[in-house]
Amino acid sequence: MMKDDWFIEEYKDQVGALSFRVEELLFEGKSPYQDIKVVYNPFFGNIMLLDDLVMLTEKDEFFYHDMLVHVPMVSAANPEQVLIIGGGDGCSVREALKHKSVNRVVLCEIDEMVINVAREYFPGLASMLNDQRVEIRVGDGIEYTKSLQSEFDCILIDSTDPIGPAVGLFTIEFYANVRDALREGGVMSAQTESPAWRLEDVAVIRSNIEKAFGNAHLYLCPIPCYPSGLWSFTLSFKAHGKDPLVFDMERANAVAGDCTYYNPEVHKAAFALPNFIRKAL
Amino acid sequence: MMKDDWFIEEYKDQVGALSFRVEELLFEGKSPYQDIKVVYNPFFGNIMLLDDLVMLTEKDEFFYHDMLVHVPMVSAANPEQVLIIGGGDGCSVREALKHKSVNRVVLCEIDEMVINVAREYFPGLASMLNDQRVEIRVGDGIEYTKSLQSEFDCILIDSTDPIGPAVGLFTIEFYANVRDALREGGVMSAQTESPAWRLEDVAVIRSNIEKAFGNAHLYLCPIPCYPSGLWSFTLSFKAHGKDPLVFDMERANAVAGDCTYYNPEVHKAAFALPNFIRKAL
Repeated sequence: MMKDDWFIEEYKDQVGALSFRVEELLFEGKSPYQDIKVVYNPFFGNIMLLDDLVMLTEKDEFFYHDMLVHVPMVSAANPEQVLIIGGGDGCSVREALKHKSVNRVVLCEIDEMVINVAREYFPGLASMLNDQRVEIRVGDGIEYTKSLQSEFDCILIDSTDPIGPAVGLFTIEFYANVRDALREGGVMSAQTESPAWRLEDVAVIRSNIEKAFGNAHLYLCPIPCYPSGLWSFTLSFKAHGKDPLVFDMERANAVAGDCTYYNPEVHKAAFALPNFIRKAL
Repeated sequence: MMKDDWFIEEYKDQVGALSFRVEELLFEGKSPYQDIKVVYNPFFGNIMLLDDLVMLTEKDEFFYHDMLVHVPMVSAANPEQVLIIGGGDGCSVREALKHKSVNRVVLCEIDEMVINVAREYFPGLASMLNDQRVEIRVGDGIEYTKSLQSEFDCILIDSTDPIGPAVGLFTIEFYANVRDALREGGVMSAQTESPAWRLEDVAVIRSNIEKAFGNAHLYLCPIPCYPSGLWSFTLSFKAHGKDPLVFDMERANAVAGDCTYYNPEVHKAAFALPNFIRKAL
């Protein structure tokens, strides 16, 4: 909610909140799917809000995108074709294109207004949407993945929370379609919510992914502007019996040279889970 | 600040804030050093506020205390005598006493009111303050450490932020006294602020520690109720040339069985630093 010159994102039925002072409301619109706002804060830069939840800030989007994208990319056998579900802001596209093997990135975003807002208010982040290797599909990722068979090497589920339009992106059926959409040697990663404050949800989502893939490896990343600051992703391989700590070290080191967060050490470290998370999974 | 029924902790000159709905204000007092409040929130339980900054919540104090205490304790050669500077809430005492080798814990807390408030409003957390191995000294940790020579195996700097009474706990002089207070094989850990939002401060503090000890190994931990949710500690050895990833695995596994957060894998993982932090140090 907006109150005086503050934006307040309330967590857990109003017991807690993260707030930002809003120096300027740059954009406010309503798409068929959600409310979209862009606000400016002197510390975080431009901030995109979807249904009054922080999606990204210019200052610290790199935590999320480095770890959503590079962990699966260096775990895939030879990532040439990449599918991103959601991610209309263009940051995941930008990160995927840092890998030289990539020759095609399909971005499937349901809400065209997110893409347009990103191009206008986050031009630095969205610039790679114009790259000739990128194919933008405005449409439903659930429907699109149903039509795919062994087509992608890496699929990134860069979704909003499991409420509203994104609910279907957390189901066993959807993850099974994602698995079928992967080629041999292919890998998926998905954002899977906060294990600090929504651990029950994380456990259910991870279990759904495991039912579809037969393997589901949770990994962690700090994300200062998301609830609790501690976030999870889940990595799954098309093949069975893969060790998530084994990845292409040469490619990992190469891409790390161009990253604010990612390097091979934080990649491995992200899979070390505290006891309370282990116990819940 | 308190506003209606909300507590708002403002960060970075009011550009951002973490807020909690306060269901009940349980205690409000003013010691010679700081304002102390205890508030109740249905999700976080009782919360201690010092000068309107969150010190701990019942729900998630374990992140901080597990990582402040067990990392150095299993890195010390044979921790029998432990000194805790600050930490009047008693949580670090409780964690230190999980190690069977410990026969003496000195808690040096400047503010007696913190200890009394902890005993009354956080009895579950503070219970080990009554253990017969614990010696409580109400006094200035800076003065106390000046008087020490080769006395402790593990020293924990469990301080508030480097403002007000705690400023002197971040200086080269203080850290040098801490080093002298350690026995051979001894280890110090200190809380060293948020690398996400106060990276310049973290770099200065770590550098001060390195100047005093000749070695200073930053490690990370998520702490949902502190600014940005990402926190740092620094581990230093009395001896030179020690590898922070080498510690007593048997003792680490033993204590992990009694921890909500800590295990040997998260211990190692905590030392993996993202590129932007590496670069700043």
